Amino acid sequence: MKRPTLSIDKKKVIKNIDLLVEKAHRSNVIFRPHFKTHQSAEIGELFKEKGVDKITVSSVSMAKYFAEHGWHDITIAFPVNLREVDKINELAGKIQLNLLVDSTFSAKRLTELLTNETGIFIEIDNGYNRSGLLPTQTREIDQIVELVSNSDKLKFKGFLSHAGNTYSARGKAEVLAIMHDAAKKLNKLKSNYINRFPNIITSFGDTPSCSITDDLSMFDEIRPGNFVYYDVMQYLIGSCSLDDIAVAVACPVVSVYPNRKELIIYGGAVHLSKEFIMDENSTKIFGLIVEINESEWSKSIPDAYVSSISQEHGIIKIPSGRINDFKPGDMIGVLPIHSCLTANLLKNHQIII
Amino acid sequence: MKRPTLSIDKKKVIKNIDLLVEKAHRSNVIFRPHFKTHQSAEIGELFKEKGVDKITVSSVSMAKYFAEHGWHDITIAFPVNLREVDKINELAGKIQLNLLVDSTFSAKRLTELLTNETGIFIEIDNGYNRSGLLPTQTREIDQIVELVSNSDKLKFKGFLSHAGNTYSARGKAEVLAIMHDAAKKLNKLKSNYINRFPNIITSFGDTPSCSITDDLSMFDEIRPGNFVYYDVMQYLIGSCSLDDIAVAVACPVVSVYPNRKELIIYGGAVHLSKEFIMDENSTKIFGLIVEINESEWSKSIPDAYVSSISQEHGIIKIPSGRINDFKPGDMIGVLPIHSCLTANLLKNHQIII
Repeated sequence: MKRPTLSIDKKKVIKNIDLLVEKAHRSNVIFRPHFKTHQSAEIGELFKEKGVDKITVSSVSMAKYFAEHGWHDITIAFPVNLREVDKINELAGKIQLNLLVDSTFSAKRLTELLTNETGIFIEIDNGYNRSGLLPTQTREIDQIVELVSNSDKLKFKGFLSHAGNTYSARGKAEVLAIMHDAAKKLNKLKSNYINRFPNIITSFGDTPSCSITDDLSMFDEIRPGNFVYYDVMQYLIGSCSLDDIAVAVACPVVSVYPNRKELIIYGGAVHLSKEFIMDENSTKIFGLIVEINESEWSKSIPDAYVSSISQEHGIIKIPSGRINDFKPGDMIGVLPIHSCLTANLLKNHQIII
Repeated sequence: MKRPTLSIDKKKVIKNIDLLVEKAHRSNVIFRPHFKTHQSAEIGELFKEKGVDKITVSSVSMAKYFAEHGWHDITIAFPVNLREVDKINELAGKIQLNLLVDSTFSAKRLTELLTNETGIFIEIDNGYNRSGLLPTQTREIDQIVELVSNSDKLKFKGFLSHAGNTYSARGKAEVLAIMHDAAKKLNKLKSNYINRFPNIITSFGDTPSCSITDDLSMFDEIRPGNFVYYDVMQYLIGSCSLDDIAVAVACPVVSVYPNRKELIIYGGAVHLSKEFIMDENSTKIFGLIVEINESEWSKSIPDAYVSSISQEHGIIKIPSGRINDFKPGDMIGVLPIHSCLTANLLKNHQIII
């Protein structure tokens, strides 16, 4: 390894996949993992080997990429981008494609623009306040259902929500409260329409909920994504142990400053992203530190962390007892704060170990 | 435009380049702009047309890219990555390549590893506390100079510093104080060695210093980069006006929430980066908002800003008077907080207007 490289521990990835596949199976829910985290056909194959055949992505480009790699049932879990309707029509002619709408405006436009049969989920805002209609916006929901059911191209699939608010939760109780609240809202909506549309489902996302709970049977489908790699953020939420984190960024050490107890690595915002967490002293942490070689990495080095990053530089704080273990030309590993962003940045620079 | 796209206003870019070319000429300093901001051969041509023939980059890969696009004099302004010495040797056989060292360890390794004549700058930490030796580390500086001067491959080029600490400055006086302090330190070091090495120079970076001052004659060479595009951060520092910002990210509107006075755009952390600024109320701002079409963008819409971003979603706050001007399928523009990171993310999705 010569430059910042995403090192992916295949054993850990498979263990992380297995856990969720089994949990979904036990809960009798459809497992439609989100592939935006890894964005990799090669990692996708590891899911395929476990019998997964339905996936989630967050853009039309990603849907196209995975369709080209043999995936035939894809939900784009993002409010439909009307400007990409050409690509959507092309895809929907080849695979089972599902879209999200959260307005009568977009639903109306889709009835005019879609040329192939396409699944439609109504996105519901569970309280995260990002995208989606509120469960109380029943008039708009009704209008969308009418538009969809009067079209021969749009097929109503059900209600979908992403509980991104679990990311600011800390600990099991807080995450579970968010999940149960979302389940209640989605199931209420489903019950309003199930007689007319007996095949509609509830679809729910987010890694914290799906990792922390044992029973997911209150939903019909789950769409977690981050769990495939996990990261320091998920560790803090309580979704995983540090040892479950399946990716580390191997970075060349370029400078060592014993007096400052700092190293400089070739590894900055364009490799790790600028995502950070704050510790109890309001210190910003852009990654935890491990020793790394071509085939594995160590447990994290206590009190070592990425303290600052610019475009290509990372500054690492190292306890004085360890600083002399490193010299320019060595590699050091960084456990990312948010593996989705890091993996996206290093899409073309990764190795599976 | 169908997806998040970096829109580059050629006229503004040329105006930004002209200003610095002229300022460097008036100050009689070498102009070696940093190309890490745009990373684009096409934008590089606009510099070539103004007579620029020396550039700065921040990685060996970038040096290789620009060497392949006809640049023959390149400084990699990053502590040398010893693991890429093969590529360095190959490049140094073709072009004038300059490297940075900030330790006797790396200097010693280079004397053993370099196979072609290569320029060496000693990086000096002006107080930014990122990379570089402190000006007071005279023993280590002496040792590096000895190592370099005893090698037939390494050619001592002088002292180089990047004043990244100007990025936390606000206003002209603070930026100028940092710049003058750095000039004093670099010139003192140069004076210690100029008799033995009559061709050594001082090289200084950063857009705030180079934009705010009229006279750069205290240095031999300047290496600003961000000025080619500027951004909201530079506007806050005082380096530019909002109108000088030469890039905007055109993003599809996918949802409109009149009650929340918010829009959702297809444009998130993987397009804009997670860089933010805080306003006086500690509100995080991930970008300012403009109206945009295929050929231009407007002045920024007052009180509109990107308030939150996740991987692909951006949430935009819009004043109630303006919310009904937008609907799903429209495009909206975002002036980036940090154009270097945004341009890096959208390297493959940009148009020059």
